[in-house]
Amino acid sequence: MGAEKKGTDGGGRPAKPMNTPAKELDALVERMRGGNVRALSRLMTLVESDPKAAPAVMKRVYSGRANARRVGLSGPPGAGKSTLLSNLLDAGAKEGKRVAALCIDPTSPISGGALLGDRIRMAGSFSLDNVFIRSVASGKSLGGLAEATKYHTLLLEAFGADLILIETVGIGQVGYDIRSVAESLVLILVPESGDTVQILKSGILELADVVAVNKSDREGADEIAATLSFTFETPRDGWRIPVIKTVASENEGTGDVMRALDEHYAYLKETGGLERYRNPEADLREALELRFRRFIDGGAVSRDADSAQVAARVKSGSLDPFSAAADIMDILFKRNKP
Amino acid sequence: MGAEKKGTDGGGRPAKPMNTPAKELDALVERMRGGNVRALSRLMTLVESDPKAAPAVMKRVYSGRANARRVGLSGPPGAGKSTLLSNLLDAGAKEGKRVAALCIDPTSPISGGALLGDRIRMAGSFSLDNVFIRSVASGKSLGGLAEATKYHTLLLEAFGADLILIETVGIGQVGYDIRSVAESLVLILVPESGDTVQILKSGILELADVVAVNKSDREGADEIAATLSFTFETPRDGWRIPVIKTVASENEGTGDVMRALDEHYAYLKETGGLERYRNPEADLREALELRFRRFIDGGAVSRDADSAQVAARVKSGSLDPFSAAADIMDILFKRNKP
Repeated sequence: MGAEKKGTDGGGRPAKPMNTPAKELDALVERMRGGNVRALSRLMTLVESDPKAAPAVMKRVYSGRANARRVGLSGPPGAGKSTLLSNLLDAGAKEGKRVAALCIDPTSPISGGALLGDRIRMAGSFSLDNVFIRSVASGKSLGGLAEATKYHTLLLEAFGADLILIETVGIGQVGYDIRSVAESLVLILVPESGDTVQILKSGILELADVVAVNKSDREGADEIAATLSFTFETPRDGWRIPVIKTVASENEGTGDVMRALDEHYAYLKETGGLERYRNPEADLREALELRFRRFIDGGAVSRDADSAQVAARVKSGSLDPFSAAADIMDILFKRNKP
Repeated sequence: MGAEKKGTDGGGRPAKPMNTPAKELDALVERMRGGNVRALSRLMTLVESDPKAAPAVMKRVYSGRANARRVGLSGPPGAGKSTLLSNLLDAGAKEGKRVAALCIDPTSPISGGALLGDRIRMAGSFSLDNVFIRSVASGKSLGGLAEATKYHTLLLEAFGADLILIETVGIGQVGYDIRSVAESLVLILVPESGDTVQILKSGILELADVVAVNKSDREGADEIAATLSFTFETPRDGWRIPVIKTVASENEGTGDVMRALDEHYAYLKETGGLERYRNPEADLREALELRFRRFIDGGAVSRDADSAQVAARVKSGSLDPFSAAADIMDILFKRNKP
């Protein structure tokens, strides 16, 4: 861990001590690899709450993990994301797959469907047989949702999950983030999602690989499905986005969504598109940024008298942060290394 | 700019050359400060597309800028964000304020309302009299939406804007990001936003300072407004979130939203809450990260033979990115500084 020590950073965010020794991490990872769900949960909590533990855990699990099928689910609140997710979990488990769900919205009620009993409000993680469900707590995650979700996905792959479903809260920016951890994105809409023109304008359709029109027993479903199908008539890079009508509450259309996802995976494999979503070089870039962030959050600026003085001038308003950053980089990297 | 040179980074993202010399930047900033809209637009484009220019511009404008009123607008597609934003722009301009809008969704049709003519689809920036509108192009922005929005907000403050409205795409994660550039957040819902229970569960209400129930001439508006008012009966940290019924298409309720925002601003000033959203130390932390990212994206890893070799092992799969990051930091910071 080099120059990193316990302390508080210049930006006011407290750094946490490294509570877990290397030996204990080794043991946890071994138990997790052996299928121990408690060890998996503990590691997930570590990487989202202990800034020192994240790289230490990740370097232990990154290599030698299996490549799971990773699917994102996005859509407005009330569209039925959780219910469709439950259905897909059930369907996957029935096929004998080891299925997992990451639910980014901590307040969302996530149901384990037929397998887990309906409408269980999840806190932390939950597992039964081949199904594992975990909430990514937005408030608790130090490095942000995207970072925690990425680590959790890697951990689930090391755990041996076959299918990982990632439910996002809302739509929009999250949709962009999710492409770094999922190779397929299901967008869930409902007849009430606003008029089709609005949906088309919002730009979210550009991110979708599969579109589910849920609650399709309601008025307006056929119209929206037809308009979307027409919109997607021309394939995008050789993939024609399927529009599937579902009634998640009745488990209708789940099989069609599963099949569409299988077809999308086959398409990605054929066209070499999978590599875009499995990029070790991009992971390296993120790991470097992470390491630097931990260096700063670990109190590097305030520990050095000269850089602390520059930071004090920013605080008092006599120096702008951008000039100060240049000075502090000069000072710190003559003396330390991250 | 130290060791930074033109090149491509280890993560595959091309670095752009520094096209704008310091003298030209000085001149642009001076013209922008003098109220020149073209100079403002040019600087906005620079900070979102030229990685070297961003810190160079920011250090010139950070100090000596005015503190504008910064308001975020969030809500699902079709809720009427753009229309309400237009109304607020008009209302602000009529009060003699210099008003500006940042529209994060580049595909969103943004109207300048009565002042600018209805339903103008914006590309780039647009200004008339005291109104300035700019789309933040998500696809073009190198550092991501949050970074571009932050810089644009700082530039608008240097330009002398009194009121900055920031429209986000969708809801969810964007809501979290927006708190680093806006001290007030208006959440716009419609009677069709899904049942109230779903809205409450989605967690987005926790972020709102003011809630507008738009299209409130439609069925169900009174019910949703009443439920939300009941929910917010207990103040949060001394602020009772107002629920305001609007019909943005008829410019109804705009004044009420403006008044609620004024009250929220007064509340923030009284309680010292403004400092939370005006934090030079947090800006310093971001500036340091930015500088490091530019160092990496500028080709630092590939330029050094030893670190390039470590990166090659990551690419070939013989080393994990997290161990590699530690090695590369050791190598680079003995030789260079960011």
